[in-house]
Amino acid sequence: MSYYKDVREYLKKLEEVGKLTVVDFPVDKNTELTPLVRLQYRGLSEEARRGFLFTSVTNNGEEMKEISKVATGIYASSTQIYALGLATEPTNESIRKKWEEALLHPLKTKTVSSAPVQEVVITKEEMEKGRGLNILPVPLEVPGFSGQLRTTTHIITKDPKSDWVNMGNYSMHLMGKTWALWEINRGNHGWVHLLNAREMGMDYLEFAVVIGGPPVLFYVASAKVPHGVNELEVAGGLAGEPLEVVKAKTVNLEVPAHAEIIVEGRVSTKEFLVGNAFGEYTGYMATDVFMRPRMEITAITMRRDPIFVHIMSQMPPSESSKVRQISSENIYYKFLKYDCKVPGIIDVAWHELSQAQLCVIRMKKINNSHPWQVLHLAAGYEPRWGKIFITVDDDIDARDLDSVMWALGWRMQPDRDVEIIKGRFAGLDVSAYRPDAPHSEKESPNVIGSSAILIDATRKWPYPPVSLPKREYMERALQLWKKLNLPELKLKEPWYGYELGYWPKEYREDAEFVLRGDFESIGRRLIERTKNTKGI
Amino acid sequence: MSYYKDVREYLKKLEEVGKLTVVDFPVDKNTELTPLVRLQYRGLSEEARRGFLFTSVTNNGEEMKEISKVATGIYASSTQIYALGLATEPTNESIRKKWEEALLHPLKTKTVSSAPVQEVVITKEEMEKGRGLNILPVPLEVPGFSGQLRTTTHIITKDPKSDWVNMGNYSMHLMGKTWALWEINRGNHGWVHLLNAREMGMDYLEFAVVIGGPPVLFYVASAKVPHGVNELEVAGGLAGEPLEVVKAKTVNLEVPAHAEIIVEGRVSTKEFLVGNAFGEYTGYMATDVFMRPRMEITAITMRRDPIFVHIMSQMPPSESSKVRQISSENIYYKFLKYDCKVPGIIDVAWHELSQAQLCVIRMKKINNSHPWQVLHLAAGYEPRWGKIFITVDDDIDARDLDSVMWALGWRMQPDRDVEIIKGRFAGLDVSAYRPDAPHSEKESPNVIGSSAILIDATRKWPYPPVSLPKREYMERALQLWKKLNLPELKLKEPWYGYELGYWPKEYREDAEFVLRGDFESIGRRLIERTKNTKGI
Repeated sequence: MSYYKDVREYLKKLEEVGKLTVVDFPVDKNTELTPLVRLQYRGLSEEARRGFLFTSVTNNGEEMKEISKVATGIYASSTQIYALGLATEPTNESIRKKWEEALLHPLKTKTVSSAPVQEVVITKEEMEKGRGLNILPVPLEVPGFSGQLRTTTHIITKDPKSDWVNMGNYSMHLMGKTWALWEINRGNHGWVHLLNAREMGMDYLEFAVVIGGPPVLFYVASAKVPHGVNELEVAGGLAGEPLEVVKAKTVNLEVPAHAEIIVEGRVSTKEFLVGNAFGEYTGYMATDVFMRPRMEITAITMRRDPIFVHIMSQMPPSESSKVRQISSENIYYKFLKYDCKVPGIIDVAWHELSQAQLCVIRMKKINNSHPWQVLHLAAGYEPRWGKIFITVDDDIDARDLDSVMWALGWRMQPDRDVEIIKGRFAGLDVSAYRPDAPHSEKESPNVIGSSAILIDATRKWPYPPVSLPKREYMERALQLWKKLNLPELKLKEPWYGYELGYWPKEYREDAEFVLRGDFESIGRRLIERTKNTKGI
Repeated sequence: MSYYKDVREYLKKLEEVGKLTVVDFPVDKNTELTPLVRLQYRGLSEEARRGFLFTSVTNNGEEMKEISKVATGIYASSTQIYALGLATEPTNESIRKKWEEALLHPLKTKTVSSAPVQEVVITKEEMEKGRGLNILPVPLEVPGFSGQLRTTTHIITKDPKSDWVNMGNYSMHLMGKTWALWEINRGNHGWVHLLNAREMGMDYLEFAVVIGGPPVLFYVASAKVPHGVNELEVAGGLAGEPLEVVKAKTVNLEVPAHAEIIVEGRVSTKEFLVGNAFGEYTGYMATDVFMRPRMEITAITMRRDPIFVHIMSQMPPSESSKVRQISSENIYYKFLKYDCKVPGIIDVAWHELSQAQLCVIRMKKINNSHPWQVLHLAAGYEPRWGKIFITVDDDIDARDLDSVMWALGWRMQPDRDVEIIKGRFAGLDVSAYRPDAPHSEKESPNVIGSSAILIDATRKWPYPPVSLPKREYMERALQLWKKLNLPELKLKEPWYGYELGYWPKEYREDAEFVLRGDFESIGRRLIERTKNTKGI
C-alpha cells in the first residue's frame, strides 16, 4: 500500500495494530476530551501512545447530533503512529526516504468530478438558520485558559498574483455560526496571499479549510515548504501517487476529495478584529492579540456521518510537535544536502520537547570551517526557527540528548566554539519581549529581533580512543550476557571503544602486555620510558 | 539499620532484593569481566542495573587462588543501588537529607584494637617472594586500550604539616609485586600532602589503599569535600555513627576496620615515573603522561577469603559517574545554601552523562540578579568542575533534560542571558588542547585555561499561563483514564496549566464563556473589544 486515502481506512489499520482506543460513552468536548488525551503526552512513553476515537461527543453535556465523532492523536502521537500514517517503517531512515522523494519529486494533483467529501453540502442559508460552525464538535483545547474554539486544520488559498496554491496549518477561531477569525502569523505563506489580494484591490481571498484529510496531508501542511511550492503536490510526492482533488462548491479552489469535512469561505482583506488568548506550541498561552482577518463561511461540505479530526498542540510533546519535528528534520536535511550541496550531512535532529528551538546536526567533518558553514546555513534557512544550533561528529547520536551532552562536555570550548547571532524573528517567544509589549515590538524586539546561539561540538583535532573495551571483547561479553539470562539489552552507541586519530604506538603495545595480565612488564617499560623523557 | 558495616552484610541485602547477579563459572578478569558488566551501562535502563559477584575469577585463563572473588556495580550502578548502600529511600530528597546531615555534622572515627581487615597480614618479605600485588584480582578496565592494571580505590594520607587526614578516590597503577604508581592530579588533596612532605624534606609520604569498604566510604571518597576536612568523618556523618578504624600494621595511619583489603605503603616525594594510557570518566582514554610518584608497598592486610571490589569508571554512565553526580549535587547544594547563604535554592542537578560538565540549578528567583549570583558562585566553587551551568525556575525539573531544554527554548535569549567565562582548569578535557601538547599546556591552555558557559534560563518577567488544561480538568481526566483501563501513567511535570503572572481579566472571562461551549459570545466580545483597540 502506498498510502491511506482517507481517515476511515486508516482508522481500521490503527485498530488492527492495537493503536486505537475507541471511547463509546459520552465525553464532553469542552471539559473532558483534551484533558483525557493530554494525559498520554504527559504520562506515557512515546511507544505507548495511541489514537483515540470518541463516538459520542457532547457539548456542555448535550449530545451533538449532526457530527458526534471526534478522532485525535491518530496522525502523529508518536513516531510509530506517524510511520503508520505514512505507510512505512518507524525508523528515521524510512521516513527520510519518503520525505526525500516527496521534496525532490512532488506530484501534480488529480482532479476528480465527484467526491466523498461532498456527500453532504450545507449552504449559507442553512447555516444562518442554525446549522453552521456550531455543528462542528471542535474540542476546547485548554479548558480554563483557552479563550475560543479553535481548529488546527489545513487552510488552502491561492495567490491571486501567481495562482500558486498554498496549504498551511493555520487555525480558524470560531466566532459565530457563519464567521470566524483567521489566526495567521505575518510572514506565513497564506498571509502573503492575503496581502497580494489586498494590493490588487480585492475585498476577499477565498479559502477552504480541510478537516480529516489523509495522513500525508497533515504531514505536509505543517511543514516549512519553500515559498512558491504547492503543498498538495508535496503530499502527492509523500503518498507516492497524485492526490485526488475536487472543485469546491462555492469557491474557486480544489479540495482533497477524501477529506471528512471542508469549510469553504472568503477572508476579508479589510475587516480585522482583535484576537484573544489560545494555547500555543511553546507551552504557554499566546496572548499577542494582533489583528486577525474576518472569515465568512460560504458552505460546509462533508461525508455522511463525518469524523471530526482534532490535532493536539500546545505543550510538547503533542501531535503538532511530532509532525513539526519530522518535517523540519527532513526539510533541513534536504536543504543542506541538495540545495546547498554541503557534503557530509548525516542527520538533522529537531528536538521535539523544545519544539522548533533546538536543532542538532550530525556530520562527517572535513575541516574546522565545515561545521560553521553548516551552522550558518541552518540558522539562515528560516529566521523564525531555531534558538540553539549544534553540530556534532558522525559518532554522536544527534537525537539522543545524553549523547549530545557528552559531545558538549568534551568536544566544545565555549570561548572558541560558540557564536551568538541576532536578527531572529521573535514571534511567539515570550523570552524576547514583555507579554504586554505592542505587537511591533514582539516581531522585532530590540530593533533587530531576538537572538540564537550556534555551537560547534565537533572534535577540533585527533582524540585518544573512546574508553570502552574494543569491539571483540564487547562481542564476547554479549555471549556471556546471554548465557547468564540477564535482562534484554537495548545498546546505546557507543558500546565499544574505537580510535579517533591519536593513539601512539607504545600505548598500543602496552595494551597487549596487560591484556595477558602481565603488568610487571609495564613497570619495566615505564622505567625505560622515563629515562628518555624530559620535562613532562 | 543506619548503615552497612561491611561489604558482606551489604551483598546479602542486594541478593535479597534481587539486585545481585552471582556468576559462579570462571570469568577472565582481563578480557571478560569488565566488558560483561559494561553492557548493563550501555544497554539497560537505570532501574534494571544490578551488582555482580564473580566467585571464580581467572587471570589469563589461570585460576586466581589467593583472592578469587570480585564484586562490581554493588555501590552505585544506579540511584536505586546507591540508596540501598546508604540504607535510605531511592529519592533525591532522602539522599539529600543524609548528605546534609553528613556535611553539617561529620562524626569523629572510633578506634578499635583489632579488626577483620587484619585477619590476614602479608609482609613485604612474603610479597617479594611472590605473594604481592599480583594476588589482587584487579580487572582490566578497557581491554584493548588500557595500558596497565589500575585500582579505583580510596587512598588515605595524612598532611605532615597539620595532621589533616584525607581520603580520596585515587588510582594505583600496578607495576610490580611490591610497587605501583600513584595516579593523582595536581591540585587534589592527596597531592597537597605529598608536596608538604617534600617541602619538609621527607623522602616519603605514608598511605593506605582501601579496597571493599562499607558503601558510605565510597560515596564520600569521590566527593569534592573541602580542603581540611577528613572524609572518614564525613563518612561517619553519612552512616549516622562513627566509622570504626584500626591502626595500620606498617604505617602510621588508621584504616577502616571492616574493609576487605588494605594495601599499606609509602609514596616517594622524589622518584617519579612517566605514566601511560588508561580509561577516564570523560569517555576517552587519558593519554596525558605526566610524571607519577612511585609507591612502595609495605604490607597487604585483608579478611579471610576477601572480596575484591572493583569500581566501573570510564564512559558514563558508570558507578563512578553516579557517585560523582550525587556527591557533587549535595556538596554544591550545601555550599550555595549553607556556606553562601543564598536563598531560594531548590535543587542542584549534575547530569551524569556529561559527567562533571553540565550543572543545572533549580531556584525560586527573587530578582534578575539572583540567578547570576548563583551561576557565579557555582562556577567559582571548583574551577575544574563544570563547563555548562544553567539556572532554571522552580517549575522546571533540573534533572530532566527535556524540561531544561523547554526552559532554554522559551525563557532564554542568548545575547542577554549567556556569559562565557575563562580561567577554568582544563585537566582531562581534551577539547582544550591537542592530545600531544606538553603537560603545562594541558593544565592551562591559552595561558589562562579553558572556558565555561553560564546560562540564565529563568523567566525575566511575568509570563502567560502554561498552555495545559487547568488542574481540575486534568484531575477529572485521570478518573476517565482509569475507567478506560488505559496503560499506567508516569506523569511528568507540568501536567496541568498554571498562571505565571500575566493573565488579563478579559482572557479569564473569555475562558469561562468558551468552557460552556458558548463561542458566539466570544465573537460578540471581540467585536466590542476591537472598537476600543488602537494600533495593535
